[in-house]
Amino acid sequence: MSAERDALLMWSMLAEASDEAAAWLVMALGPEDALAWVDMAVGDPVAATARLAPHAPPGTVDKAIHAAPRWALRRPHSRLDDLRRRTSACGARVMTRLDEGWPGAFADWEQHEPFALWVRGTADLDAAWAGGVAMVGSRSATSYGEHVTADLAGALADGDAMRGVPPRAVISGGAYGIDARAHRAALAVGGVSIAVLAGGIDRLYPAGNGDLLERLTHDGAIVSEAPPGQAPYRARFLSRNRLIAAASVTVVVEAAVRSGALSTARHAMAINRPVAAVPGPVTSMVSGGCHRLIREQEAVLVSDADDVRELAAPIGATARPEGREDRGAVDFAHPHDRAAYDAVGGRGGDAGVVAGRAGLTVEEALTSLGRLELSGVVQRVGGGWRRVAPKGA
Amino acid sequence: MSAERDALLMWSMLAEASDEAAAWLVMALGPEDALAWVDMAVGDPVAATARLAPHAPPGTVDKAIHAAPRWALRRPHSRLDDLRRRTSACGARVMTRLDEGWPGAFADWEQHEPFALWVRGTADLDAAWAGGVAMVGSRSATSYGEHVTADLAGALADGDAMRGVPPRAVISGGAYGIDARAHRAALAVGGVSIAVLAGGIDRLYPAGNGDLLERLTHDGAIVSEAPPGQAPYRARFLSRNRLIAAASVTVVVEAAVRSGALSTARHAMAINRPVAAVPGPVTSMVSGGCHRLIREQEAVLVSDADDVRELAAPIGATARPEGREDRGAVDFAHPHDRAAYDAVGGRGGDAGVVAGRAGLTVEEALTSLGRLELSGVVQRVGGGWRRVAPKGA
Repeated sequence: MSAERDALLMWSMLAEASDEAAAWLVMALGPEDALAWVDMAVGDPVAATARLAPHAPPGTVDKAIHAAPRWALRRPHSRLDDLRRRTSACGARVMTRLDEGWPGAFADWEQHEPFALWVRGTADLDAAWAGGVAMVGSRSATSYGEHVTADLAGALADGDAMRGVPPRAVISGGAYGIDARAHRAALAVGGVSIAVLAGGIDRLYPAGNGDLLERLTHDGAIVSEAPPGQAPYRARFLSRNRLIAAASVTVVVEAAVRSGALSTARHAMAINRPVAAVPGPVTSMVSGGCHRLIREQEAVLVSDADDVRELAAPIGATARPEGREDRGAVDFAHPHDRAAYDAVGGRGGDAGVVAGRAGLTVEEALTSLGRLELSGVVQRVGGGWRRVAPKGA
Repeated sequence: MSAERDALLMWSMLAEASDEAAAWLVMALGPEDALAWVDMAVGDPVAATARLAPHAPPGTVDKAIHAAPRWALRRPHSRLDDLRRRTSACGARVMTRLDEGWPGAFADWEQHEPFALWVRGTADLDAAWAGGVAMVGSRSATSYGEHVTADLAGALADGDAMRGVPPRAVISGGAYGIDARAHRAALAVGGVSIAVLAGGIDRLYPAGNGDLLERLTHDGAIVSEAPPGQAPYRARFLSRNRLIAAASVTVVVEAAVRSGALSTARHAMAINRPVAAVPGPVTSMVSGGCHRLIREQEAVLVSDADDVRELAAPIGATARPEGREDRGAVDFAHPHDRAAYDAVGGRGGDAGVVAGRAGLTVEEALTSLGRLELSGVVQRVGGGWRRVAPKGA
């Protein structure tokens, strides 16, 4: 497993989070075989194409063949010992999907799971994402937006012991405006707050929020899927947003019609997480995006913390989406079985759908599903296949 | 027809708009026979019960029998010549459902159509209701609410000639706050604005809006279903709200969670008219009712006049709800046929439903529906009955 873990860490250096070809390749072959495939693709593209072709959805092989030299070019500069040194130098730890405490909320996405996460702080990430509330919004928030953010984040992070309402983690970015206000309000009530950064965790960006982000490493966490040293480029903000959107519910407090916060809302919709939006004056530009989400019934209007909690997952529910087993607990008898198991996901599907997602032929998928059924981790339901819910979930 | 019209005017004096037993009786028997029935009910309740029993939904006969003495008591004080004198004394005209220009929007309600309407002003009520926008909200509006009301009402009443957007009538009550602001903004752009009063049209209530209401009699209209002389009691406000709600769309601008404006919204829902609500700060009590309507998907969030127009009926569409013929154009061969035709309404239904609504037995309803089908005014659709859309509608 250590070799697999190392391969995941290597992939975090070779490919951007937004690189769909890399994500697919790692899912289809597993991280180790995917690395071996890159070497093959650079040396013998024809053989590499032949290796992938039977499994791949249309276009994917071409993308991977084209991307292979780019990944290969990074290989000589991507050293695990260097990565470990940089990780510990900034007081961070690194985790992968193979590690205890990995957020189950990241599984079963349309978007792909991070290869790795760098973490500074003591928060239980699995629990935080399972029941936590993402609060997002404009950097140029109004005083109204900041006021509502503070009210909501404070109330959610605090819970209400008198009424038996448990506290919830607040998850946001590290930006000025709504993000910073949400973290400060959560910290003020002694709650758990988590900032997901777009660049490496050794860079507290923006610098003006350095003190706040430093505080989160004591009373919450800062997290990034970018290895230490990476700059917070625009593309990294956009893929970072999908991690924030994996929270139990995403609340958009203030967002103009073209706002990055709406990208987080779209990610949340794509993975079937509820989206909430706070209304404001129709005369306020930064409420325009919220109003559009509500008007088009993409978001539910929320006025207070109770409204938000009504949408969020119950606290104490399993941190993993329905039917998801810890991967470590599943024995895969054949390399295809992992891909088939991943492809069944939380949504399930018939053998054709599973095959398409996994990049297997229908026959291969059925063979794998038969093996997985024997191990008791998937079952036939109606005409399709579903994961078996883990015991005690 | 003049006798029928007189009977309707008489009923407007005998029964309150909220009196469901009177509404049912007049629908079931026609206004003239309904008056005769009241005399019978006072003299010989047993015979009167027998006369109604075969037609009536459960409980209705008892209600009518109990109400008959109340209606009869008003009879000696209810004189048509007196009513005509009071009507002309205040410069009003009176119209009934039998008259040209009666708003087709009042047909096919769960609530009942007014017996009569008193009108001061020149506005085309049929057209106004068919495409008009009801704007309702709190008397204690905020400056934000008044600002948005003025923006919306002005833009809607003005239309946009450059973009080919026709003007729309604004329909509201006569209260302080949102109502008054909407009328003023519509008048300011030379638009049509209509105030529906709860009391008699000879009483400009509230007095503080007297000048505004007087202006509407020149540049719009004031309207009431209460005969002149009646005071604006609370119950009359509530039944008045259903007339406002018959507009093409109802916009709630600012309303607290317990606000009369929400009663108008509920009336609009009951007759399947769209409801819109303007969001505001979650910290504002008078936006609370709007937010609840939006959150529960009873209202669509609107930010500007275009949003409202998207919900409203197209201008130039028939003033009458789908499938509604002018009553004068339908020949009723048998007294039951009118009741059956009314009961089919815009919604349609199977014979059992039509019978229940009309107070007929299923056999009677089927006999009437057969006759109406022969005349081409209703048709069988699937297992039910629908009105035939009038030609050219």
